Amino acid sequence: MKAVRLHEYGQPPAVEDVPEPVVTRPHDVIVRIGGAGLCRTDLHIIEGQWQAKSGVTLPYTLGHENAGWVQAVGSAVDQVREGDPVIVHPLVTCGYCRACRAGDDMHCTASTFPGIDTDGGFAELLKTGVRSVVKLDPGIRPEDVAALADAGLTAYHAAKKAAAILPPGSYALVLGAGGLGHIGVQSLKALTAATVIVVDPSEAALQLARASGADHAVASDGQQVAAVLELTGGLGCEAVLDFVGEGGAIGDALAMLRRAGSYYAIGYGGTLSIRAIDIIASEINVVGNLVGTYNDLVELMTLTSQGRVTLRTRSYPLAAAGTAIDDLAHGRLAGRGILIP
Amino acid sequence: MKAVRLHEYGQPPAVEDVPEPVVTRPHDVIVRIGGAGLCRTDLHIIEGQWQAKSGVTLPYTLGHENAGWVQAVGSAVDQVREGDPVIVHPLVTCGYCRACRAGDDMHCTASTFPGIDTDGGFAELLKTGVRSVVKLDPGIRPEDVAALADAGLTAYHAAKKAAAILPPGSYALVLGAGGLGHIGVQSLKALTAATVIVVDPSEAALQLARASGADHAVASDGQQVAAVLELTGGLGCEAVLDFVGEGGAIGDALAMLRRAGSYYAIGYGGTLSIRAIDIIASEINVVGNLVGTYNDLVELMTLTSQGRVTLRTRSYPLAAAGTAIDDLAHGRLAGRGILIP
Amino acid sequence: MKAVRLHEYGQPPAVEDVPEPVVTRPHDVIVRIGGAGLCRTDLHIIEGQWQAKSGVTLPYTLGHENAGWVQAVGSAVDQVREGDPVIVHPLVTCGYCRACRAGDDMHCTASTFPGIDTDGGFAELLKTGVRSVVKLDPGIRPEDVAALADAGLTAYHAAKKAAAILPPGSYALVLGAGGLGHIGVQSLKALTAATVIVVDPSEAALQLARASGADHAVASDGQQVAAVLELTGGLGCEAVLDFVGEGGAIGDALAMLRRAGSYYAIGYGGTLSIRAIDIIASEINVVGNLVGTYNDLVELMTLTSQGRVTLRTRSYPLAAAGTAIDDLAHGRLAGRGILIP
Amino acid sequence: MKAVRLHEYGQPPAVEDVPEPVVTRPHDVIVRIGGAGLCRTDLHIIEGQWQAKSGVTLPYTLGHENAGWVQAVGSAVDQVREGDPVIVHPLVTCGYCRACRAGDDMHCTASTFPGIDTDGGFAELLKTGVRSVVKLDPGIRPEDVAALADAGLTAYHAAKKAAAILPPGSYALVLGAGGLGHIGVQSLKALTAATVIVVDPSEAALQLARASGADHAVASDGQQVAAVLELTGGLGCEAVLDFVGEGGAIGDALAMLRRAGSYYAIGYGGTLSIRAIDIIASEINVVGNLVGTYNDLVELMTLTSQGRVTLRTRSYPLAAAGTAIDDLAHGRLAGRGILIP
Repeated sequence: MKAVRLHEYGQPPAVEDVPEPVVTRPHDVIVRIGGAGLCRTDLHIIEGQWQAKSGVTLPYTLGHENAGWVQAVGSAVDQVREGDPVIVHPLVTCGYCRACRAGDDMHCTASTFPGIDTDGGFAELLKTGVRSVVKLDPGIRPEDVAALADAGLTAYHAAKKAAAILPPGSYALVLGAGGLGHIGVQSLKALTAATVIVVDPSEAALQLARASGADHAVASDGQQVAAVLELTGGLGCEAVLDFVGEGGAIGDALAMLRRAGSYYAIGYGGTLSIRAIDIIASEINVVGNLVGTYNDLVELMTLTSQGRVTLRTRSYPLAAAGTAIDDLAHGRLAGRGILIP
Repeated sequence: MKAVRLHEYGQPPAVEDVPEPVVTRPHDVIVRIGGAGLCRTDLHIIEGQWQAKSGVTLPYTLGHENAGWVQAVGSAVDQVREGDPVIVHPLVTCGYCRACRAGDDMHCTASTFPGIDTDGGFAELLKTGVRSVVKLDPGIRPEDVAALADAGLTAYHAAKKAAAILPPGSYALVLGAGGLGHIGVQSLKALTAATVIVVDPSEAALQLARASGADHAVASDGQQVAAVLELTGGLGCEAVLDFVGEGGAIGDALAMLRRAGSYYAIGYGGTLSIRAIDIIASEINVVGNLVGTYNDLVELMTLTSQGRVTLRTRSYPLAAAGTAIDDLAHGRLAGRGILIP
Repeated sequence: MKAVRLHEYGQPPAVEDVPEPVVTRPHDVIVRIGGAGLCRTDLHIIEGQWQAKSGVTLPYTLGHENAGWVQAVGSAVDQVREGDPVIVHPLVTCGYCRACRAGDDMHCTASTFPGIDTDGGFAELLKTGVRSVVKLDPGIRPEDVAALADAGLTAYHAAKKAAAILPPGSYALVLGAGGLGHIGVQSLKALTAATVIVVDPSEAALQLARASGADHAVASDGQQVAAVLELTGGLGCEAVLDFVGEGGAIGDALAMLRRAGSYYAIGYGGTLSIRAIDIIASEINVVGNLVGTYNDLVELMTLTSQGRVTLRTRSYPLAAAGTAIDDLAHGRLAGRGILIP
Repeated sequence: MKAVRLHEYGQPPAVEDVPEPVVTRPHDVIVRIGGAGLCRTDLHIIEGQWQAKSGVTLPYTLGHENAGWVQAVGSAVDQVREGDPVIVHPLVTCGYCRACRAGDDMHCTASTFPGIDTDGGFAELLKTGVRSVVKLDPGIRPEDVAALADAGLTAYHAAKKAAAILPPGSYALVLGAGGLGHIGVQSLKALTAATVIVVDPSEAALQLARASGADHAVASDGQQVAAVLELTGGLGCEAVLDFVGEGGAIGDALAMLRRAGSYYAIGYGGTLSIRAIDIIASEINVVGNLVGTYNDLVELMTLTSQGRVTLRTRSYPLAAAGTAIDDLAHGRLAGRGILIP
């Protein structure tokens, strides 16, 4: 089958023929890919940022946001059958460790992460596990939701945590209204009655934010911190969801946070640097976010079925993966790019 | 009356005569000081670290850990009466803002902080408010608990937050077993069944930690991270309470934190610097801690009455404040120093 | 001034002249009534159901859902001033007990409840306390929100508790879509993405439920339990909010509850009777609801200002209190009755 | 092999030869029983109380509190191997439903309950699943902990829920200090700093309660409600854990509950009957308890390994099951009876 494989860090991946994955263990599930989302993390992987963390052996197949149809299952699988449309939770988890049993499966101590540390879904077929597949409602096409499998899931997961501190009258700030950010906005609007403020340098992104339900869209023109403080009566926001995580965003985020507020780290690339006295004097929190649970993904699919969350996408044939990657790297890709085998 | 007043940053405070505070508002309470705790924050104030944050006008009276007896009350006060023994919550709060009404009075939007931004308790009398006084059980002497009013309260507040993620079988790390740390250890042992590990460079501090109930006491000899990882099966601790907050402690703390774990910032002086990818990849949290609520202080007094929390102190006459400050600054003060007018 | 006073249980209250209330304590606030909600609890009071619980001495003035304008304040009050439009939290609380300090002011151990155990707001003036008044946005008329002070607050309080167990894909059942129920529906829709099902015998009530945002409106025609089970895939609802609390409603509610679900008691009049084995085998919860906190009322006013919660009312002059009571008692009053002095 | 089988409701079970269970599915685990706890529920089963709920077909093997050693495993099992000492979680769960994935495996929608609705562990061998076995520390003998698998687990589960509302200074009441109750007392003391009060009619049970760490032991002599109110300053207890659930216990429990308190239903047999107005006026909660999660059982085993929880037991050979049942039914069995094949 065809697959998009990374052979060397710093070099574009190649579209090439590889053997099809086969069922070897009782819980294996092979998924025929209907669509696979292209993510900024794929760019970071190619750059080598994940080399030490993932420890993956090159070459391997990229793609960690996958949806499609069940193609084959292992001997212990009876939760899905051939032909079922599914979206694929990004991790393959064990189901037996304390984290899996506590509903925190993203902290499974024996997980693999296809597309990160083993072969992913930029291919015709993907090997995953029975614990990772969420059946889709009949009306939903895999290619339309694939990018929710990781990017959308992370945004939803962070929004869900933030919802606990966002009663009516509170403020949620979304930094960056791109592919993740606009899912964050929709999730916050679905889960809370908070006022949602979006900050982004791009007018197109701000338009997407407004269309996604943002109550206020603020341009990052150097005055964004002052603008947000003014919108919030000088107090800042109870929750700041940072989908950027680099450049001036982290500093802005902390400056727009209210006393006792929480900063949700989602985007990455930069460094959080803050004096201990500034954490303490206002008693703020920094909250990491890593994909989400299987149940989070089910809930996100429910919001999608209900029309509360929609994703802006642009499709590319799998063979055009290079073009898609170039478009994303050079800012020519509005919404999420989807590779279709 | 006599008071210990700071006239100039960088200079030792002076013991001098000042007018006695008097009741001017309906909720005022004047407390005759039985004992006032000397805290590392007092050193930081003298150094000028708090100058910008507090905005206090010099000269003023230091002392933010106070206990004693009610001396006089305002016209709207009927919760305490003259002669009642009390410990004084460090903040004077309004009782009407959202934070006060939600039980987060340390985030009162109209509070003052005697000893930090107005006259404190290194004096014969202290002016506070009716919302700040906790009546003491008859058997408790003000001078024995004064230092729990801020240092102990902060340690308890952090331990109480951490307790929510510390089921049996989990690990809590206490970095620094000094005046705050040993209250942290006792609070964790009272509130949880977690295994408590203490890391400190001083053998005397480790002995205090063991006496306070620590399950493991580890010397910071350069191998402390490896030692803690070994104690925790290579996984690190669910909760790390950092009572140091400077030097290598913050880095150590993060290195000893488990996936999905929480780092509680209590001590300060240094800077937390962490790559966003490292917050996200293990989904950790950073949790600020600022004193505690009034109810927290009541609970801590209950633990004190029950003998579950005890404080090691050394008394100085108020006139010897300079000696006490020198002893603290030069590491000659084991336990907490208490000034007695 | 004119007031509606109960002289004898079982007899209609009288509209008569009484002395105006005056400020006697430092925290007193006198409110000139703009509107006072008439509540089924007023009928229950007249019947004598509250006689033992409240211990009130007759005659006294009814009315526990009040809004208006500040008329006078005590010496310790500077949070509001004469002329401020306010809605009145139903309890006058102390601010000093553990419950008040924990943000559970409805459990204040030293509260009074005007209209229940002391003179209420079916009058030209009401005496309350500074801790009880919530300032209204300029665009909101007291008479339009008065009934939110207790009925609406209770509905919101229950909905807010339920929100914690209502992720996307879950089901909330509202039993009874009358004056409280339709606020419950609107609150659930504002706070959650759950599917809201309403059950009521009256087609008018079901229409109000649909207009309030209910996803499903089910007639109680004897088949309502079966209908709800069918809507929920045979599993029942995660949360059941019972605004009826008598007749067959309690039994229905428990029959429509999912395993591990929670039944929120709001309406009253009947008796909950359930075998211990049935509580245990499905691990269900019964959750009482008593008005709500001051902060809850602030949040509800925010939802009202945002247009997310609106109240259907019908006004009566204070002198027509008897007619209003008759209309309510005989089912001729759609929405909430408001007495206007 | 030998097994204790129920052939007819109302008749004593028979000890007889049955075929050994064999592995038939990928996740099966066969456990060689080291000890199986005898529980009051076994008496209720024999009486027929569970006939309708369980729907089990007679004859079948009793025994739902089991521990032993792994004898054989299915093809998909690699979490345990032959010879591993294990305690057996009472339910065999699927691992795939929302409840299992959320860490609420006792609400698995596809579970079986050996000893209740399929063959249990009063036998030489038990068939369970890989998700149900908790490995024991080397120093722990299966027969010493078997009764913690259900009775102890339920007590711990309830205590853990209650711990969330039991800060220092609060009161927890334990009604009934028998086999479950004394585990409840030990669990509360391990998890909280609350004051624990035990009420029981038997002086032997009160002695066991004191030995288990109870702060106060009160005889149910008709004055127990008054005695508890006096111990709690007239206010009652924040949490009441009812291990009796029949006779006057439920009424007592509610009478000893504080405003806003929670009643935890654990024991059963009787009926909870309470007027809706009494649930509402004091805003109390009723909380059902059903066994506990797998992780709860792991935590309980940790407390056992640490010596914080110990169980009083009395052993019988499997062949003497009839004697053990008689002893339990006639009050001649102090502590928990354990059948040893």
